[in-house]
Amino acid sequence: MDTNYQLIAYETLKNHCQMLFERMGFAEQDSETITNVLLEADLRGFESHGVQRLVRYWQELRSGVVDQNASPAITHETPLSAVVDGRKAMGQLVGVFAMNLAIAKAQAAGIGLVSVRNSNHYGIAGYYTHMAADQGLMGISMTNTEAIMVPTFGRRAMLGTNPIALAVPAEPTVFSFDASTTVVPRGRLEVYNKRSECLPEGWVLDERGMASQDAGCVLDNIIHKRGGGILPLGGAGEEHSGYKGYGFGMICELFTGVLSGGLTSNHVNRSPGHTGIAHFFGAISLNMFGEKEALTASLSRYLDEIRASALAEGQDRVYVHGDKEAESRIRRLREGIPVNNRTMDELINISCELGASWN
Amino acid sequence: MDTNYQLIAYETLKNHCQMLFERMGFAEQDSETITNVLLEADLRGFESHGVQRLVRYWQELRSGVVDQNASPAITHETPLSAVVDGRKAMGQLVGVFAMNLAIAKAQAAGIGLVSVRNSNHYGIAGYYTHMAADQGLMGISMTNTEAIMVPTFGRRAMLGTNPIALAVPAEPTVFSFDASTTVVPRGRLEVYNKRSECLPEGWVLDERGMASQDAGCVLDNIIHKRGGGILPLGGAGEEHSGYKGYGFGMICELFTGVLSGGLTSNHVNRSPGHTGIAHFFGAISLNMFGEKEALTASLSRYLDEIRASALAEGQDRVYVHGDKEAESRIRRLREGIPVNNRTMDELINISCELGASWN
Repeated sequence: MDTNYQLIAYETLKNHCQMLFERMGFAEQDSETITNVLLEADLRGFESHGVQRLVRYWQELRSGVVDQNASPAITHETPLSAVVDGRKAMGQLVGVFAMNLAIAKAQAAGIGLVSVRNSNHYGIAGYYTHMAADQGLMGISMTNTEAIMVPTFGRRAMLGTNPIALAVPAEPTVFSFDASTTVVPRGRLEVYNKRSECLPEGWVLDERGMASQDAGCVLDNIIHKRGGGILPLGGAGEEHSGYKGYGFGMICELFTGVLSGGLTSNHVNRSPGHTGIAHFFGAISLNMFGEKEALTASLSRYLDEIRASALAEGQDRVYVHGDKEAESRIRRLREGIPVNNRTMDELINISCELGASWN
Repeated sequence: MDTNYQLIAYETLKNHCQMLFERMGFAEQDSETITNVLLEADLRGFESHGVQRLVRYWQELRSGVVDQNASPAITHETPLSAVVDGRKAMGQLVGVFAMNLAIAKAQAAGIGLVSVRNSNHYGIAGYYTHMAADQGLMGISMTNTEAIMVPTFGRRAMLGTNPIALAVPAEPTVFSFDASTTVVPRGRLEVYNKRSECLPEGWVLDERGMASQDAGCVLDNIIHKRGGGILPLGGAGEEHSGYKGYGFGMICELFTGVLSGGLTSNHVNRSPGHTGIAHFFGAISLNMFGEKEALTASLSRYLDEIRASALAEGQDRVYVHGDKEAESRIRRLREGIPVNNRTMDELINISCELGASWN
């Protein structure tokens, strides 16, 4: 393994994170919920959304971006839908609250759609879709973010990375799609920047809206809102249909920032006194379309056909969405979670600040 | 204008097409419906899905791929959902039937979701989403097709071009996203092939799953199922996140081929005795999430902010999805529809066969 990483047993990491959130002042149950969302990212292999974010959440709590004492509230409700005001609470707590509401509605009426305003970063979108899949339902989850996606032909970021996630029960592995609608998420730029490596062509635009491969410069431009940002899936201009990625990003804005009566990504400002990240959660019963078992069997068969389909020369496997993550999860539950040394230092420092020892 | 095209007044083209469908044996109302779907594509600028397809529909009727006497039937129904068997009827008639069902359910209960199996090509996905938007609802439409999209790392087409469309009421123009989840639709390859031009890099794979720029060869491989096809949005491999386009294509397969109890694209075979294109239609009332007027105003404001946002150097406009099509529609209703000379010849030939004169 990379010498910058050490393996920590899942239970050890979980107990410690949970204790840290309790020391920050969260109730036991809430601390466990937040920890579960964070560690699920590490288990599935999304390091950027895992425990390495703990330091950022701690900063946001201290600066008042996140209101530790707030609870989400329903502001509009029908048997099939709701709008939730997150009231600046921790995004994970808002997300679990809202997805549970969508699930309850789907269990009672077949469909539950919940749009959320005024929340915070909620971790991986796919955590919430799996909550629905675990109940035998299709789950949908989306979130907007601070603006970072530049619309086709523009040079100003007007949309977020805007992930869209869908999970559907299947055997042997849940079908689980979870992807930002930008070419790459922001975290990928940060990795290239740390390594002082040149970005691949077609990922970002500079402040004039021209092609760039300089991660540091683009990140700095985004932070200072000088223009430029990450391209939508499909890239710049029309040759590879970047307006499609831009369109999927718009679908996310619509279901999150617009339907919630909240803010679209271009108005989200994560400084104290402002916030406004918006989410969407959907749960749909397969029984709406026939016998759940038959539909699940049919999906599972199709997924197996894809897995078994002919390989491109030089490749060794065709994946279905969710396969890699499910395998990573099993491996890491057994072998431990690789934690970056710098993240480890941060965890130790926070532990100190909170009067807890790491060991 | 290109000398290969002539302008035909909308009303002239409409009356003639409608008469041709009547001569083919469709009832007056059905002939008008099919014609409306076809001509809406031409009005919005999607020539590939317009009257130039009439010759193909005529072939499919004569060969028995399309059953002219069939009517779609509901096989499963709840207050919020339905499954429809298209019974090999014309895709446009199946599509309008199923979207009207979704709209009626949304008007009665807030949401209507309808999955359809055993249908045929239904034209542009965006025709159906606008049926919902015209009633003040959000409209969703998807369709699978014969397999043409190669999954990431594979060389066998396992998904269709799988367009996803969403329309939402907004001022002054309906937000209207309608896009295949491949880098480009099949029609684009056909255009390059006719012109004997080399394809841009990153659109297609050859029969070994390797990069290709030869449209003729790839089209031939697809027809003879030798392997290869069009890449998902995001391109080959992982560098530009082609697995995301592949994932959006999977979402389409799920809502169409799987939920309908029908066929996924890899099993669709458009020869007589086989068929099985599957669609999905959704209609959602904005009132599920608050005051419709306020939500529409909020969306319209956001779209205007994007239109007014800073331009990349060398560009002259940032479009919102639906803008180009709405402008094309107004222009073509006034000036006429550009019809390719070859399409014109086909229309004249079909008219002859059906004992009708063009003039």
